[in-house]
Amino acid sequence: MSELMTFGLAAKEAAAFLAVATTAEKNRALEAISRAITEHKAEILEANRKDVENAKENGIREVMIDRLMLDENRLDSIANAVMKVVRLPDPIGAELSHAHLENGLELRKVRVPLGVIGIIYESRPNVTVDAAVLCLKSGNAAFLRGGKETINSNICLEKVMRGALRSCGFPESAVTVMHDTSHEAAREMMRLRDCIDVLIPRGGAGLIKTVVENSSVPVIETGTGNCHIYVDKTADPEMGANIIFNAKTQRVSVCNAAETLLVHKDIARSFLPVAKAMLDTKNVELRCCPVSRGILGAGVKEATEEDYATEFLDYILAVKVVDSVEEAVRHIAKYSTHHSESIVTRDMTSAEYFTSHVDSAAVYVNASTRFTDGEEFGFGAEIGISTQKIHARGPMGLSELCSYKYILTGNGQVR
Amino acid sequence: MSELMTFGLAAKEAAAFLAVATTAEKNRALEAISRAITEHKAEILEANRKDVENAKENGIREVMIDRLMLDENRLDSIANAVMKVVRLPDPIGAELSHAHLENGLELRKVRVPLGVIGIIYESRPNVTVDAAVLCLKSGNAAFLRGGKETINSNICLEKVMRGALRSCGFPESAVTVMHDTSHEAAREMMRLRDCIDVLIPRGGAGLIKTVVENSSVPVIETGTGNCHIYVDKTADPEMGANIIFNAKTQRVSVCNAAETLLVHKDIARSFLPVAKAMLDTKNVELRCCPVSRGILGAGVKEATEEDYATEFLDYILAVKVVDSVEEAVRHIAKYSTHHSESIVTRDMTSAEYFTSHVDSAAVYVNASTRFTDGEEFGFGAEIGISTQKIHARGPMGLSELCSYKYILTGNGQVR
Repeated sequence: MSELMTFGLAAKEAAAFLAVATTAEKNRALEAISRAITEHKAEILEANRKDVENAKENGIREVMIDRLMLDENRLDSIANAVMKVVRLPDPIGAELSHAHLENGLELRKVRVPLGVIGIIYESRPNVTVDAAVLCLKSGNAAFLRGGKETINSNICLEKVMRGALRSCGFPESAVTVMHDTSHEAAREMMRLRDCIDVLIPRGGAGLIKTVVENSSVPVIETGTGNCHIYVDKTADPEMGANIIFNAKTQRVSVCNAAETLLVHKDIARSFLPVAKAMLDTKNVELRCCPVSRGILGAGVKEATEEDYATEFLDYILAVKVVDSVEEAVRHIAKYSTHHSESIVTRDMTSAEYFTSHVDSAAVYVNASTRFTDGEEFGFGAEIGISTQKIHARGPMGLSELCSYKYILTGNGQVR
Repeated sequence: MSELMTFGLAAKEAAAFLAVATTAEKNRALEAISRAITEHKAEILEANRKDVENAKENGIREVMIDRLMLDENRLDSIANAVMKVVRLPDPIGAELSHAHLENGLELRKVRVPLGVIGIIYESRPNVTVDAAVLCLKSGNAAFLRGGKETINSNICLEKVMRGALRSCGFPESAVTVMHDTSHEAAREMMRLRDCIDVLIPRGGAGLIKTVVENSSVPVIETGTGNCHIYVDKTADPEMGANIIFNAKTQRVSVCNAAETLLVHKDIARSFLPVAKAMLDTKNVELRCCPVSRGILGAGVKEATEEDYATEFLDYILAVKVVDSVEEAVRHIAKYSTHHSESIVTRDMTSAEYFTSHVDSAAVYVNASTRFTDGEEFGFGAEIGISTQKIHARGPMGLSELCSYKYILTGNGQVR
């Protein structure tokens, strides 16, 4: 048996323990984790310093180094985030339905944990704690594979969390960090069907594609967002400009930021210059179709086919003028990653057409796509945003980390 | 572009049509299909005759030939089953939750179809119609890959169903039967991520393993059932014997039939001979642990480790005496396929321990495992029984063929 398989089986055993742990027990363990992070600050920061040094030696970009770096404040917010999860309701044990069958059987559908949740992510060490804690609260064991750039931080965080778990009588294998960050180990993890119940990749499109192509463990795809704002012919132009400005520029590196602006031809001439003026204040580069270029002047770049398919995550916006809401929907069907799209309109028929025909996790009328987020939706926290259709769609909170089972009680029924 | 991809994209277009079709429109199409099957009986039976002849020439076993054979009665029941689906409630459009966020956004979670559902199954041609119709009713396009033994029947059924769809103004690519039944084509289907939203394999363990190992399309595993009956020390012995007799023998070839009997040591001596006497009337072969063999005599076979892991689908039952409900749960955790398990007991503490610790889709107290079935659960119909934990667990009815989306309505909210 491989070393990884041994860890996988230990996680599975821990999952059986967690599945029947009470809310009070789980909360006590989370509180211990929060406390332990605060108590072991020096040790964690020391481990993180090694990661930062290695990253500098390896010539990693400044922005990436900032993502992996911890300091006292960041550790405080990690510890506080754990306490926030303590205060969230426990999803486990909720009765989802209840029926009395004609034969006298009582049929109850109850929420249960998924089991062992594998998470593959990139370089932010806060994810190590966030993900572990959301898994624990929902009665799942966490099996974590972070980026090699943060391996020292992650190993230290695992040690600290495991110590806290042990102090509460929990099996330490409830949280596992893979110490081997090689690609081979990641591939092996993706085939650990006997131990891991679901795999959630968190990261860029490349990471997610690799997991989807190679995993035999069921995968929940998250995070890639090629989001669209469509400004309909009856839109309030000021509202449209505010929404595209917010969706594009409030935070460019996130999956719910807008990447393409679609504009109805009847409003394009008046709307586009207004929108451009706002976007210019943040130096957003527009990549335009011939019609919008005709309106905005040859100073703006031409859009290529590829621009419409790209999640820029940058101060770049593709622009296209369309003939109708139907054409907008067709464009979205072709290029969208099915994350979030919004229509700005005063016409309820257009709004209804858009929301029923656009096949995305979150479809908006007259609002920014930036609201697609577990906190904003009122879930308290999220482990990611699913862009696939099975199991969970959109922001995944604690309930989305659960499955269910049927419990049937009889008095000797046979068929 | 490959031919299969062309069909896949056509199915995807049909799915967009189906997603917004009304209940009345969908029901009209299903009624037309039911009628068309009756009207084209002769043609369908002629195509089926070719399959039967080929099967005989290829020396296929009689029991398999019976599975693939159609006759007037079987076609009538297929047409009737379609009408039953017409009468089921439409799952699409249901509002699953509704909230007003603090910022004024109205957040609705509504049920939507999955899109294109791929189904890989073996030789029963009734599945071609059943699966297509359940997909259509839930607003999904069906992309079907049946066994090569029934290809003539399936092609004919596709033609008949497509004619009915066209007559109602539906796109015929709402139902696709893969005419190429080669393994290469099946492998290609399993990678059609851009067209197929979910793949449901229906069949034996080998088929399901192949799909899970090779598919990049999300898979919902169905159907393998290594189910257990545990007779606790306080069980009513007569009830226990009735339940194991029913679960083992009422229909041996189905996934919710019992394959292993676990018996508490304190009741084994009195219970096992009673159970054996009943099972003997159907010539059930017992494969026993040393303790149960000590009780039943050396006439019964010894169980091997593998017997406990086997879904016999036959008049064979593995037997094991255990020391406690905890040991029963551990045995089930080790060998079960997480389908259905039952405890027979008069002790509510044991029952509660069993239902909370056994991690299976359906967990019973004092009833036969044979009830794990969409019809029995009151779903009206089922496309299969999921044995995995993501998306759906246990019997999958129309609602389990659906996803959801969030619709957010605002008045200009930005973040």
